[in-house]
Amino acid sequence: MATLEEVDVLIIGAGPAGLMAAAWMATTGVKTIIVDQKPCRTLTGHADGLESRTLEILASFGLAEVVSSEANPTIEVCLWDVSPAGGIERRIVRTNCNPGISKYDECTLGQARIEEHLLGHLQQYENIRIMWSTNPLLVEDRSTPTHLHPSSYPIQVILETTAQQANESVLAKEAAFRTLVKAKYLLGCDGAHSWVRKHSHLSFEGDQTDEHWGVIDSVPITNFPDIRKRCVIKSGAGNLMIIPRERKLVRVYIQLTPAAATSFKKSHHIDTLLSVAQKILWPYSFHISHIHWSTIYSVGRRLCRTFSKHNRVFLAGDAIHTHSPKAGQGMNVSLQDAYNLGWKLASVIQGVMDSRILETYQEERFPVAERLLAFDKRICGSICRAMGMSRKSQSSSYQQELETALTEENSSASGLTVRYEDNLLITTVENSDLTSTSHSLPISKQRLAKNIIVGARFPNHQVISQSDARPCQLQEQLVSSGQWYLIIFAGNIAEEGPNIRLQQLVASLGSPDRFVQKLIRNASERLVASVAVYLVHSAPRNSVELVDLPELFTPFNYATGYDYTRVFADSKSHRGSGGDAYESYGITPEGCLVLVRPDQHTAFIGGLTDIDSVDCFFARFVLV
Amino acid sequence: MATLEEVDVLIIGAGPAGLMAAAWMATTGVKTIIVDQKPCRTLTGHADGLESRTLEILASFGLAEVVSSEANPTIEVCLWDVSPAGGIERRIVRTNCNPGISKYDECTLGQARIEEHLLGHLQQYENIRIMWSTNPLLVEDRSTPTHLHPSSYPIQVILETTAQQANESVLAKEAAFRTLVKAKYLLGCDGAHSWVRKHSHLSFEGDQTDEHWGVIDSVPITNFPDIRKRCVIKSGAGNLMIIPRERKLVRVYIQLTPAAATSFKKSHHIDTLLSVAQKILWPYSFHISHIHWSTIYSVGRRLCRTFSKHNRVFLAGDAIHTHSPKAGQGMNVSLQDAYNLGWKLASVIQGVMDSRILETYQEERFPVAERLLAFDKRICGSICRAMGMSRKSQSSSYQQELETALTEENSSASGLTVRYEDNLLITTVENSDLTSTSHSLPISKQRLAKNIIVGARFPNHQVISQSDARPCQLQEQLVSSGQWYLIIFAGNIAEEGPNIRLQQLVASLGSPDRFVQKLIRNASERLVASVAVYLVHSAPRNSVELVDLPELFTPFNYATGYDYTRVFADSKSHRGSGGDAYESYGITPEGCLVLVRPDQHTAFIGGLTDIDSVDCFFARFVLV
Repeated sequence: MATLEEVDVLIIGAGPAGLMAAAWMATTGVKTIIVDQKPCRTLTGHADGLESRTLEILASFGLAEVVSSEANPTIEVCLWDVSPAGGIERRIVRTNCNPGISKYDECTLGQARIEEHLLGHLQQYENIRIMWSTNPLLVEDRSTPTHLHPSSYPIQVILETTAQQANESVLAKEAAFRTLVKAKYLLGCDGAHSWVRKHSHLSFEGDQTDEHWGVIDSVPITNFPDIRKRCVIKSGAGNLMIIPRERKLVRVYIQLTPAAATSFKKSHHIDTLLSVAQKILWPYSFHISHIHWSTIYSVGRRLCRTFSKHNRVFLAGDAIHTHSPKAGQGMNVSLQDAYNLGWKLASVIQGVMDSRILETYQEERFPVAERLLAFDKRICGSICRAMGMSRKSQSSSYQQELETALTEENSSASGLTVRYEDNLLITTVENSDLTSTSHSLPISKQRLAKNIIVGARFPNHQVISQSDARPCQLQEQLVSSGQWYLIIFAGNIAEEGPNIRLQQLVASLGSPDRFVQKLIRNASERLVASVAVYLVHSAPRNSVELVDLPELFTPFNYATGYDYTRVFADSKSHRGSGGDAYESYGITPEGCLVLVRPDQHTAFIGGLTDIDSVDCFFARFVLV
Repeated sequence: MATLEEVDVLIIGAGPAGLMAAAWMATTGVKTIIVDQKPCRTLTGHADGLESRTLEILASFGLAEVVSSEANPTIEVCLWDVSPAGGIERRIVRTNCNPGISKYDECTLGQARIEEHLLGHLQQYENIRIMWSTNPLLVEDRSTPTHLHPSSYPIQVILETTAQQANESVLAKEAAFRTLVKAKYLLGCDGAHSWVRKHSHLSFEGDQTDEHWGVIDSVPITNFPDIRKRCVIKSGAGNLMIIPRERKLVRVYIQLTPAAATSFKKSHHIDTLLSVAQKILWPYSFHISHIHWSTIYSVGRRLCRTFSKHNRVFLAGDAIHTHSPKAGQGMNVSLQDAYNLGWKLASVIQGVMDSRILETYQEERFPVAERLLAFDKRICGSICRAMGMSRKSQSSSYQQELETALTEENSSASGLTVRYEDNLLITTVENSDLTSTSHSLPISKQRLAKNIIVGARFPNHQVISQSDARPCQLQEQLVSSGQWYLIIFAGNIAEEGPNIRLQQLVASLGSPDRFVQKLIRNASERLVASVAVYLVHSAPRNSVELVDLPELFTPFNYATGYDYTRVFADSKSHRGSGGDAYESYGITPEGCLVLVRPDQHTAFIGGLTDIDSVDCFFARFVLV
């Protein structure tokens, strides 16, 4: 006897990707069920690496502070190598991050804690239901390649919820109960062995490799001097990686021979792993007081080349790419997949955007997945190859390759410099590319803000709130609400020229036949398909009176009064920091408009008179 | 039929002072009951100003991040005055804080939220019981001026808990129930009309003034340009202060004539207050969409000259000093009173310190209370006096006085530069003061660290964790656990001289007949009467190997392994900040020892060979 539920989105898998997708559904008011076969969230082990971009994304949901306060920053990385005197010796200590790019440093925190904080966030919303101990049994997918009405429910899934051990008495009567869920969209965030992927007949290409690794999460007792730094260690006895974690935990990755891997699989004796680790780290001692988690795995590098079926079923995270955990990328790319997809799906479900925008999910994330796998192959290669080379040549090559890999990890692989190509939601077309027939295309002008890269995430610099002198991180104003953001860099508006240009811009935006005008009007209600407008000027802050600016910048609402948080000055803070946002963004004196998507990626850059292009940009896919 | 309970401490009043005292009891494991006549915490209104020092204190209990993220920083202050053209005009905009002194800026957050966060903290501890809707009825105080055994229970209080409206059905059977509490100590944190003060027959000197003020907490709708800045406004129609608050709230203080005050008391019509505010702010408009709270009060400036009875009953906060809320000091000084008292009481209750240390509560906090009242009188004077002066002379004098008052508020009044005089727990005695008879006195050497003022709170500078390159705020390592902290500034220990001095210091500390040695050994268990040791060196960080340092600096514990968080380098961070802690603290090349109390106040500064003085310091009051 199955109960029946209708939802907008059914998410299979409540790991990082599924929970991030649910976070978008929560804030945008989309009715969602998320299920997982586990009886509760992850408790120990699994992923632990958090790249700067992931922290920026968590910040956009208000979760970065709590995550950062628990996490362990991995500021340094050491390379250790075979010592000519026997044993191992430290070769290089270097910074593990590129601090100029993000406010956040790379850090580590167990997947369990990330899931906990995402779940805590979801609890605030009534439109999200989480079902644990629940498996999908049967799917009926009536979606078609042709356009279906967005409000139809082409997906039907039968879910079976089993009695949880912890809760057995309560559920005893109904032992296992079934729910029939009708959904508009189905998301498979259900990992490498994705049920959704299999039932959608999407192939997972690639193979197992012969690389085997053991993992131990523990509080080690050791005289190894770099135990609280990230380390890559190559010794005569094999390779090992050290990842210091939250509290006093340390994760150790131990490369195993196929024989050792087989032996461990049989016995599951932690001593097997431990003795390999001890040999690699010799002459340093390495003991363990308490083991939190351990596992072994064989590296499988696989890629699903089609992320969606009919734009009604979508896959994200490990369901579309698996690789080694060596660069700590897994949880990051999975979260970032779902972060890319979630707002688009919500906008289509709310009926405010054309469903064609869903195609950009594959267009944008497939190249990221491909690069991830290629990068993983290189970083694994540089560790494993080193094992078969002559000592001298291997060392210099090993160091060089690893350094290159780390540099790459800290820029593109971390998500910070990911740049999406031109598509329905990104306009990089420059003036010069235009022919006379392309009048309907918006024209982007990258040259007006050379360090705000169209297609990449909007970079962060500090500005000062005009109303109260509070130092603000400009990126942090772009919260994940489903809104778009139009940032007006109007220059020194205390001068006559820029001031007149600003007045003209505001008049043009205010014209009732403007498409974007509707979207700006929606902004006070935080609807998806709305545009919030920010002004960042470069005039001396005290030469500008907030109340003298056009009301566009202090939007009024009878319930909550004026909004004083929309105008910023590029000034130094009262503590002397910042004051160089215009310079850092590379903004020319003529100023510019920057249109930023709900996921903080820059969609378009135009001049202050290019409102037509903004209109034209939105008209391609906004339905209101 | 009264139930009987025995507790170490009974706290009357669960406002900021009572909850801060309870926070100390919680972390030090002291069995405590805290009662309040209210059915739950404060919901709206009351205090809202948070000084930098208060945030440092909240940080020491792990609460600063959550409070800061909710609070509104008041970075700027504006002075407005009568305009010759009629109405009012802005005269001065200036910084409201002195950013060099603390990591935290002055900010505002409703007392309700501070109480909420302190209560959340207390919930983690089983030794704290909170009883709402509870009044003390009768007290029997058998304490005497002479020494009682610390473990006796001389205080008996009958408490009456009444049925809460919200919970009436549950309590119906027992309508009001009584509890007889036997306590070792009684704390009166029960406000201006303190029951504890009255029943201890301690007088409250001072008087009501004829200053009357109205207060409105609201979201105003106004074109007054500085509504998100702290403002002091003097107009022909009276005086008004603006305090921007968390979210979009603004608090307005409105000076009332005695007639207006009487009229409001009769009618309680908010319009009475509002119309005065509107007249003062003319020609700017001032309306209100939603009122959160309002009240009027007459300034009463009163002081209790005896904070304790027989060192068994103590008073803190408004029970010992009342004044105007103009400088936003009330909640701060109250919290700071309790912060001063709590750890001392816990140390005596735990039997590890002589009860004579309780006398330092009055010695240290009475001068602060006296200064607070004098300061309040001055700041009120400079506002009120201005009303009766000729326009020209009044303006310049008014501005000057206010500027002076604000400067004072940001240093001494805020608690940042409060310096306690020499007493049992503070040793400022310098070498040169010594006579041949005073061999048993510890000798402090202020000159060795000229910016770490003995008696004042230990100032904060950034240092770098030796083990993992993490930037750390040195003050934040001094968490409120009841522990003392011995910070060893050993200089450039990569050089032979300083390295040998450090080895000698460690050898001397390790000698088994050392008094302080016992206290250091306690540190691994976080007992009160223990000393945690930190090393801050000025050598290049990579020239020091943590594992080569004496084990004193990486204390070992079988359950949790080595502690890698005790050694810091005075280096620049990976983001380029800091690296000037030695210079900022004014530490000479010979280095020094700094002994810091559990409340972050510096107790003693010595040279690296002055372990005898440390021993001698503790021997005066430590009982272990």
